[in-house]
Order: sequence, then C-alpha cells, then structure tokens
Amino acid sequence: MNVPLTSQTIEKIIRIMGGGDRVLTRKTDLLSYAYDASFGLFVPDVVCQVKSVEEVSEIVKLANEEKIPVTPRGHASGLSGGALPVEGGIVIDVSLWNDVLEIDKDDMIAIVSPGVITADIDRAAKKVGLMYPPDPSSSNVSTIAGNLAENSGGPRCLKYGVTKDYVLGLQVVTPEGHIIRTGGRTVKNVTGYDLTKLIVGSEGTLGVITEATLRLIPRPPATLSLMAAFGDIVQAGYAITDVLTSGILPAKIEFMDQSSIRAVENYHPMGLPLDAEAVLFIELDGHPLAIRDEAACVYQLLENAGALRVQKAETSEEEEEMWKARKLVSPAIAKHKPTKISEDATVPRSQIPAFLKRLRDIKHQFGIDLVVFGHAGDGNLHPNILCDQRDREEMEKVEQAVAAIFEAAISLGGTLSGEHGIGIMKKAFMPMEFDHFSLEMMKRIKEAWDPNGIMNPGKIFPKPGDRLVLRS
Amino acid sequence: MNVPLTSQTIEKIIRIMGGGDRVLTRKTDLLSYAYDASFGLFVPDVVCQVKSVEEVSEIVKLANEEKIPVTPRGHASGLSGGALPVEGGIVIDVSLWNDVLEIDKDDMIAIVSPGVITADIDRAAKKVGLMYPPDPSSSNVSTIAGNLAENSGGPRCLKYGVTKDYVLGLQVVTPEGHIIRTGGRTVKNVTGYDLTKLIVGSEGTLGVITEATLRLIPRPPATLSLMAAFGDIVQAGYAITDVLTSGILPAKIEFMDQSSIRAVENYHPMGLPLDAEAVLFIELDGHPLAIRDEAACVYQLLENAGALRVQKAETSEEEEEMWKARKLVSPAIAKHKPTKISEDATVPRSQIPAFLKRLRDIKHQFGIDLVVFGHAGDGNLHPNILCDQRDREEMEKVEQAVAAIFEAAISLGGTLSGEHGIGIMKKAFMPMEFDHFSLEMMKRIKEAWDPNGIMNPGKIFPKPGDRLVLRS
Repeated sequence: MNVPLTSQTIEKIIRIMGGGDRVLTRKTDLLSYAYDASFGLFVPDVVCQVKSVEEVSEIVKLANEEKIPVTPRGHASGLSGGALPVEGGIVIDVSLWNDVLEIDKDDMIAIVSPGVITADIDRAAKKVGLMYPPDPSSSNVSTIAGNLAENSGGPRCLKYGVTKDYVLGLQVVTPEGHIIRTGGRTVKNVTGYDLTKLIVGSEGTLGVITEATLRLIPRPPATLSLMAAFGDIVQAGYAITDVLTSGILPAKIEFMDQSSIRAVENYHPMGLPLDAEAVLFIELDGHPLAIRDEAACVYQLLENAGALRVQKAETSEEEEEMWKARKLVSPAIAKHKPTKISEDATVPRSQIPAFLKRLRDIKHQFGIDLVVFGHAGDGNLHPNILCDQRDREEMEKVEQAVAAIFEAAISLGGTLSGEHGIGIMKKAFMPMEFDHFSLEMMKRIKEAWDPNGIMNPGKIFPKPGDRLVLRS
Repeated sequence: MNVPLTSQTIEKIIRIMGGGDRVLTRKTDLLSYAYDASFGLFVPDVVCQVKSVEEVSEIVKLANEEKIPVTPRGHASGLSGGALPVEGGIVIDVSLWNDVLEIDKDDMIAIVSPGVITADIDRAAKKVGLMYPPDPSSSNVSTIAGNLAENSGGPRCLKYGVTKDYVLGLQVVTPEGHIIRTGGRTVKNVTGYDLTKLIVGSEGTLGVITEATLRLIPRPPATLSLMAAFGDIVQAGYAITDVLTSGILPAKIEFMDQSSIRAVENYHPMGLPLDAEAVLFIELDGHPLAIRDEAACVYQLLENAGALRVQKAETSEEEEEMWKARKLVSPAIAKHKPTKISEDATVPRSQIPAFLKRLRDIKHQFGIDLVVFGHAGDGNLHPNILCDQRDREEMEKVEQAVAAIFEAAISLGGTLSGEHGIGIMKKAFMPMEFDHFSLEMMKRIKEAWDPNGIMNPGKIFPKPGDRLVLRS
C-alpha cells in the first residue's frame, strides 16, 4: 500500500464529511497524527475527525472499495503503536466525538461516545454512587475508544478486572462499513458469539467502535492505603504473594524499584525511602469496618515478610500523597533520557519474585538503564528501558534486552502484554507465545471480517522475518 | 447430512480410540445420548468416550475429512439443546475425562479436565480458602466443559459474573482437528485476539474444549441471608432495584413467584408464605462486620419497599433451610405436568418490574401454566411453562407464549438468553435480536473456523423459515 490518495478520493471524503472542516490534508496537520506514545513516525494521507456513525460507515465503505488503509485513533496515548497509520491512508480520529456520556443509575450502566475521556466516565458514575473501575495511567487523557481497542488496565484492575470486564455492548462499523450492534444492556448475555469481547482488545483491526455500553458497580464507601519499604526487591515480591494468598483482595498493589524511587525523589522530593530496594503501595477498599480490620492484617503480613518499614495513611491527604509518588514514576523517569521503552510483560502472580530476579539479571547482562514499576499484584510489571534513540549502539542492546524480557516472561508462564496490546511493538514476538495454529485461527477471523485487509493494517500479526527495530 | 457411518469409518474410530471399550454403537447405548435437559430426541451414530486431547484431535480430523457431524457432550444438563446430535454423527463424550483438577493457591487458578464436575472445582478451591464463583443450578451434575460451552451462570453471578469471567485459558481442538492454546495463566492478557472468550459460550460450534485454566478468588469469610415476602409481584421487582441502587451489592438476589412458592410447599412443606405473590432471597457475603451492617440496611430497604415480612437467617442451619426453598423450585414444578419449558430471557435490571407485568399478562393471554423464578438481581428470570407435550393444542399455545416472552424481553432492551444459550431452542428467534450484519459477522467466524460445518451443526444460527416447534 502507501500509494497517495487521488484528489477524487479526497473529494469523496470531503463530501461524506459534509465539507472540509473536519478533513485534514495539510502536511503540518498530518504530522500531528504521525506518532503516539510508543515509537516511530508514520504520516497518514488524510485525517477525518468524525462525529457520527454514518460518517464512519461511509468513510470505511469508501476505503474498502478503494483498498485504502484505515487507522482508528483516539488521543493516541497507547504504548504499543495501535494508533499509528503504518501504511498511511485514512486516520479516523474519534477524539472530537464526545457528546454522549449517559449514566443510567437503575441499570448501572453508562452509554458513551467513542471520544469520551476515560476518567470522565468514572467521575460521572461517582456522582450517583457508582464506579467505572478501569483506571489506566492515562485515564485523564485517553479516549474510551482507545481503551476499548487496547483493553486497557490500570492499578484498580487487580481487584476489579480490565476494561473488557466492563463492556456490555458495542456499536461497531465493520471493515466493510456495515454498522452492527453487539451485546446489549444486560449483565448476562449468551445470545450468539460474544463479538463484544472479541472486538475489545482487537486493537482496531476488526472495526471502528462508535459507541459502548459499559457496566458500572456500586462505589466502595471507603479506601485505606499502606506503603511498605523493602531492603530486598525479591522479598517485596514474596510479600505480594503473602498478601494475595491471605484471603484479602486489595483494590491495588503497586510496585516501585529503587531506580523508580530515586527518580521520583529527584523529580519531586517527597521523602520516599532512598535506602529501599523496592516499595509496595497497597489500597484496600470496601466497607469502612472491613478495611480497617483488613489493613491491620496486611500491616502484619508486610512486617512478617521482612518490610523495613510499613506506613499507613491516616488521612485522605496522606493517602493522596502516597499515591502521588506512584503516579510520578513515569514523568520522573522520562526526564532521565530522551527515549523510554515501556513494556508490560505479565507473569502469573507466583512468579513475580522470579521475574524480578530475571529483570535484575537482564539489567546487568545488557548494561541497560532499566526501571521496574507497575501493577505487581496481578503480575503485570512495567519494565521501562531508558535510552537515547540516536545512539545506535545502545539501541541494539535495548532491542536484545527487550527480547530477553519477553523470553523471561514467557518462560515463567506469562504473556507479552498485560494491558498495552501488541500493535507494532510486540508483533515480532507473537510466535514466541503462540504456535502456528493458534495464530492461524486469529488470522482467519481477521481475514473473514476484513477481506481487503484495510482495517489498521500492520498490527498484531507478524510477517515472516519481522523483528523489533528501535534504531532510527 | 444424517447418512449412517460406514463400517470402515467405525473401524477407524475404534483404532483411534485404542479399541472398542469407549466407542458406543449399540442402539440402546446410543439412545442414552439422544436427549439432554431440553427438548427432542436425536440419536447419534457413534459415541466416543474420550480421555485425551490426542483422541479428540484424531477423531475430529477424521470427522472433518469425511464430513461427519461432531457434537461435544458433557453430562447433558443443558437447557437449550447444545449437546443434542441433531444431525447424527459422532458424539464426543468428555464426561469420563475428569482426571485433572489442580488448584494452584499462589497463582489463584485451577487447571481442569473437561469432564470435571463444576461443584468439585469450588469444593477443591474452598479447601485452600479460595472460591470458584459460577454456580449453575446443575453444578453438582454438570461438567465444566458444558459450562464453558454454554457460559453458564447461577445465583452468585449477580455479584461475581458468569463462567466466562473466570476463564483465563483453554486448550481446544479446532473443527479441523488442530490442538490450540488460548490465553494462559495470567489474569491480564491482551496478546492477540481473545479466543478464550470467543470459545466460551460458543456452544461447541467452534471446537472441543479439552482443558481449562480457571481464575479463583479469595473466599468471602462470611455470608448472611434474608428472605422477604411481598403481596404484589411488581412491588418485589421495585424492591430489587432499591437494593441494587443502594450501594450494596449482594452475592445473590433470587426471586420466586406465587406459583413457585405453592409448588415448593406442596412438594416439601417448609412454611413458605402462601399468601405472598412473590418472595425474594438475598445473600450478602464478605467481611462479617461489613455484612452485618449491610444486612440491617437491606432489611430496612425491603420494609420500606412494602414487604409483608422480612426474615433474617440467624444460624447457618436457618440460612441453609432458606436457600433450600429456592433450590426445590425446579424439582417441585416438574412434578406438576409432564413437560417443562424453561426459558431464561433477560432484561436490564430496571426493567424487572415491567417484565414481571408482561409475564403476568402473557400467562393470562395464552392461558398457560407459567411459573416465574430466577436470578432477579441481574434481570435473568426463568419463566417456566408447565405443559404436556402430547397435547398438540396446548403446545401450540405454548409455542406462541414462548415467542411472546422473547418479544417482551427484547422490547424491554433485553436478550434471548442470559445463561442457557441458544442451541436449537431459541435459534428461530435470533433475527428478533440481531440485524442481518450482526449475525453475518458471527457466521463468518463459524465458516472461517469450520469450513465443512461439522462442529455441532444445527445450533445457534437460524435457517430461513426456522420456527420453534414443540408439538411432537
């Protein structure tokens, strides 16, 4: 592909969009759509800032007829390249389409347009005593459509599950431009194949999501947070297992290694324990009487597991301050070096200590600047490599280290991605996790739904000889 | 299809199965495989009582080559006809294959063979303080493979979600006989398309499930149950909404109408309120301090909603007795008449009162013996029609009433099936819920995976002119 669109095609697009106001073709505008929060620069031929399902349907029909690549895009905060138009063509930008955010308290659901900001859904739910649990780090920026495409996670997913667990129904434009509805407004539904859960997490390769019906739950009346510092990183890993097998399920168990702690303290001094090799942040939620009792248990478990110090937030201000530390890791480490490669390899819970050991070895073996933090409670760690993309020699080591991280995760029974998706960043590693026929059955769905291969091409599925290249 | 198998084919099957011990071909044996808990009688040509993935793979490969229908079967307790060999051919019986039931406490997962009994999984999890939440009524009889195929529900699904929400990974034999693995051992996984959640609930039409990795959760330390009697059925519906919007999420909210109450009292007198038009059974679970407080709230809510009486189980014996009443509904009503048509149309929570009204109207309009009970908390009611299959005139009315029930559910924003599946019983109604292209996208998956259409044919997808026929 990558053949520039003809002026006739652009004219047809402008006609569908009811004029040129929301159709971008100038080079400067297109450049703003060439990147996301991952890696690489890919300029589309045209951007449509859609605001209705009819527009999407007509644009996709045209693209399908003329075999033009289509890449759906929200606010492009994704970390695996899902929103990158790697083969050029049309970008369908849904970020302006945010007019519907309806909460139905009685049915405990939300109906949302694709461009609604994730955190706004939870804020709206909160007003009526409900909660939308998924809370990816980018939730104040990301669109719900992007979260749906990538099946985003977040800290609260330890207890509550990921985006997919909260989607009851979708409106979707298929790769041939047909408008379909999947699922509905009920929490139970076994009528036909579960297209809802197939489409959520399919990274925009099976269609464009144009509306979603989301499940909400009663908001827990109280939260309570603890922080524990450990002198040994692997010991922190064992402490996580101790808490999780105690019968108590915290809402969040987050992890920061020494490099993360130091980076945050450099960036914004807040009295974190610089002597610690790791800290854990734990949030309990639920009935106030229950979590007070559970907090006492967890406190004891952490002490028994060898924590240097355990601290309980006594006020909501202290609690907020505690979590601020965890939230600052990403911006803090981004200050260190120009390039940040963010992974999300995930292992079974019991393998967290072993994975932490392997990551420590990889750091030394390749001499890379590796920072580890993340949602340790569900085995979803974020090993981040800080580097300089212009340094070819360093980037070669980084490429090897990334492969070693995935090898470690998979050999421990884990997976390539817990919440970021595959996109272009991890597709070369797919055969590491799946045998031929498992991948083949995925491809058959893709081909049956998108015979012309126009919908977000170049993502998820590896081509022979594909490998990760980070050198510019 | 429905062409008898040749003796050469039978010989090949016996060779694959390592002898004839687990290959059934005698008419009397085959008749035991001709029915399930739904409706109709369909005799297979041969039954293979498989015990390994290699056997399944080779049998399916042979069936695919020779275009022989294959119907996977557990203990056949399904209510929509999923296990019926409607086009004859081979039944793959997994019920003897129950050798693996491994609980990994640290990873909080269970690995199970397809023939393991559902309730045994929860019993094994309980020993280490964990819980497998899905609890279909047939859980002491049903195999996990059947639950996976139909995505079974149960009372506890109100709080905890359905079978699908607890499946992390599968081993599956595809319709062409290839062995694939989906998902894995981690609770977070966005690596490629979610084949796990596509296969769970696909009613055996996309392959044979040969192993599953299930997610377990910490077992709530305590439960507490209440029962409330209402003089008006619709008022009971409003009470459910009041409880669910209070911020408290009970583990179960079950419903019985007056006919169910009377049937149970006739069958096994236990002092149920015969004057009530409906009763609700509510179970709270969690931290003992929390549920004691929540129970007081729920008690007040039920009284405010106009309950005639609210009763709290004070001991675990009282609690058991309370739930026994609900469990006896099915056997009790089955005593009334020879035929029981069990539906599971589901509506959004807020529509429960409206649905109860519509069901009352349908009962009178068609003059049928309609009993309503079920998992009212999630809108998943079980309207059961008691009738006599030999009475053609009555059955004609029943057919019309079933259609009216589905029309009511769908017009209220609901769905044909909450937990029983479509099978053969509801496929004629699929176009009522889905438009052409939504169904078309499901069919494309089926055709791409099963080009010869051998895997559980005749299920889910309607053929032109299909209608429900209950008259014998």
